[in-house]
Amino acid sequence: MISGFRFAGVRGGIKQKPGSDVALLAADAPAAAAAVFTGNRVKAAPVLLSQKALAASRGRIRGIVVNSGNANACTGRRGGADARAMQAAAATAIGCAPGEVLVASTGVIGVPLPMDRVAAGIALAGGVLDPGAFPAFAEAILTTDRGPKTASREVRIGGRRVSLLGCTKGAGMIAPNMATTLSFLVTDAAIAPAALDRATRAAVAPTFNAIAVDGDTSTNDMLAVLASGTGKSLAGKELAAFTEALTDLCDDLARQLMRDGEGVHHVVSVAVRGAASARAATLVARRIATSPLVKTAIAGGDPNWGRILCAVGNAGVPLRPERVSIWLDEVAICAAGAVAPGFDEARAAQVMQQPAYTIAVDLGAGDAAARYLACDLSHEYVTINADYRT
Amino acid sequence: MISGFRFAGVRGGIKQKPGSDVALLAADAPAAAAAVFTGNRVKAAPVLLSQKALAASRGRIRGIVVNSGNANACTGRRGGADARAMQAAAATAIGCAPGEVLVASTGVIGVPLPMDRVAAGIALAGGVLDPGAFPAFAEAILTTDRGPKTASREVRIGGRRVSLLGCTKGAGMIAPNMATTLSFLVTDAAIAPAALDRATRAAVAPTFNAIAVDGDTSTNDMLAVLASGTGKSLAGKELAAFTEALTDLCDDLARQLMRDGEGVHHVVSVAVRGAASARAATLVARRIATSPLVKTAIAGGDPNWGRILCAVGNAGVPLRPERVSIWLDEVAICAAGAVAPGFDEARAAQVMQQPAYTIAVDLGAGDAAARYLACDLSHEYVTINADYRT
Repeated sequence: MISGFRFAGVRGGIKQKPGSDVALLAADAPAAAAAVFTGNRVKAAPVLLSQKALAASRGRIRGIVVNSGNANACTGRRGGADARAMQAAAATAIGCAPGEVLVASTGVIGVPLPMDRVAAGIALAGGVLDPGAFPAFAEAILTTDRGPKTASREVRIGGRRVSLLGCTKGAGMIAPNMATTLSFLVTDAAIAPAALDRATRAAVAPTFNAIAVDGDTSTNDMLAVLASGTGKSLAGKELAAFTEALTDLCDDLARQLMRDGEGVHHVVSVAVRGAASARAATLVARRIATSPLVKTAIAGGDPNWGRILCAVGNAGVPLRPERVSIWLDEVAICAAGAVAPGFDEARAAQVMQQPAYTIAVDLGAGDAAARYLACDLSHEYVTINADYRT
Repeated sequence: MISGFRFAGVRGGIKQKPGSDVALLAADAPAAAAAVFTGNRVKAAPVLLSQKALAASRGRIRGIVVNSGNANACTGRRGGADARAMQAAAATAIGCAPGEVLVASTGVIGVPLPMDRVAAGIALAGGVLDPGAFPAFAEAILTTDRGPKTASREVRIGGRRVSLLGCTKGAGMIAPNMATTLSFLVTDAAIAPAALDRATRAAVAPTFNAIAVDGDTSTNDMLAVLASGTGKSLAGKELAAFTEALTDLCDDLARQLMRDGEGVHHVVSVAVRGAASARAATLVARRIATSPLVKTAIAGGDPNWGRILCAVGNAGVPLRPERVSIWLDEVAICAAGAVAPGFDEARAAQVMQQPAYTIAVDLGAGDAAARYLACDLSHEYVTINADYRT
């Protein structure tokens, strides 16, 4: 439980399959809020509405309403009106102004929301809001996920205990009808909206923004953080400590998201070092993590260092190949741009049997580093995304 | 037959499986030459050597030597020496200076060339050079291709007959050990090296540089054009006519390459129009063509217009989603950023059963257009690239 928040997760009947599909979060008083949204230029109606609410309220939010089963994306004018109706219904249920509510949706796209069911679900949720119902909230936002993904942290900052609690859903970056990454985090820290915004962006960059299931970005992605604490706002070292805890929480959730990715058997940490700049390190790490060549090698457990080196060369970063070294965990597979002396293919293949391991790359060009989480491109991924029919 | 050239394709024994693996091309006199090479920063030794030869000879080339079965990539210092030895052996076989010979390799990477077999193959090829042996040349450059890919054109330019002949190999942009796109074209046109260079770049941009099997670029890619004609060089309108014929030839070869891509069942032309700039149109077309989301929908024959719209939004181009329309051949699937009125899913699914069709996108933002060839991401692709073990 996090002081100052109540939650609910109920079934409105939006999903055809069983399970809850309407989630509601209520803050007892206006909470400091920050959020990041999809970079896709095609943004679903709830994303556009939530961006507006966050800006207009100057980061003071009373509630979040989420439905799963329907993304309300690519639904034209009607989609905008439906998102506003969800916002208004949630405001009534919570007892606040519509502009104080964030809205999120996930599920099938291009299909109008069944607003009668959505409205009934929101009213129902309003009646069962409870400080201990975060698990129900986390359950109701799921689509093709295998199960709920939650994490919490407790830290001491400046002599006070600060709690953080979060949930996320995938599954993958996409699902049969284009699912979405939604993440909602709450904390009892006292923090001003502007500082919370900086902390959130800092926490997301190396975690949720450094994972790649397939490189596609949904129209509905959203991560929001609400802070209920009152009193003197965190600043300086205390703010740094909070940012660290928030980053750690996001890392935990992002890894859970990857493990539940579509057809994922291996979650691989791509660690690039020796880069000329942080940007170069990130570009190389992302290219490795999104290369179909590398992802199928991960699926097959094939220590094909040439594919990794090829992906490095495709990152669009100046490169001296003769300085590049690559390891699978502790096993050297490539040195000076060629096969590593004494390359032990059997040992390297053994590393790749593990559910989690590291591909480490040293570019030999500087001191900058970056990490990315990658996964395999498997038959299951193709099955889920190709064989499925709407 | 193209006047001024002789060809050979023989077996040196570089490949473990049966088949020829050494190809030699000889020009009777220095031919005007132009080439484009891989954009990967990790370039195989023969690529670096050929770039040097082309520059040092100022585009005057007497021969091309190619081996398949081994890419001579990521092979360190020894790789450079081996490429030079191939160049020297070919020069001896042809009777020219080493600096007048281009070198290309394709096959497994990270393994030193078996130089005794390569040298024996080149000597053998030198003894059987023949004006009619282009099919043997085209056969010897193949790796995992299902068969040779050749095309020819005859055009009249300024009252003279001009012949063009070309071959290419894939298969896909990658193969189990990272195969490569190699293309060699010859013509009897009289054209200066600088003009040939411009014509080649113009021909490659909308053809070989606008196809995507999986978005990875090999370390060995190379396309070279040799022109044997003498007399007054093509210029002005004649040069434009030649460029058109060369582009048409490249388009033919690029489509053959796609059809033989790994696990490819559908070759889909992505036609973007109504863009604010040619660059924006190309970025959108490429994003659609490389999106795993779209590629698995193509594999499954699922007319999921939301995935296409989502890919458009991920292209990094300013966008008004409410102006976007999408068709599968003539079937409207998306209009004004939402489902097209009267969307006929069955008819749209029928279009996607065809081996070749068009995804047309109108961005409603201007007059620029671009095309890209895409294909499906299928189970066979995963099988070829994941289940294969070195």
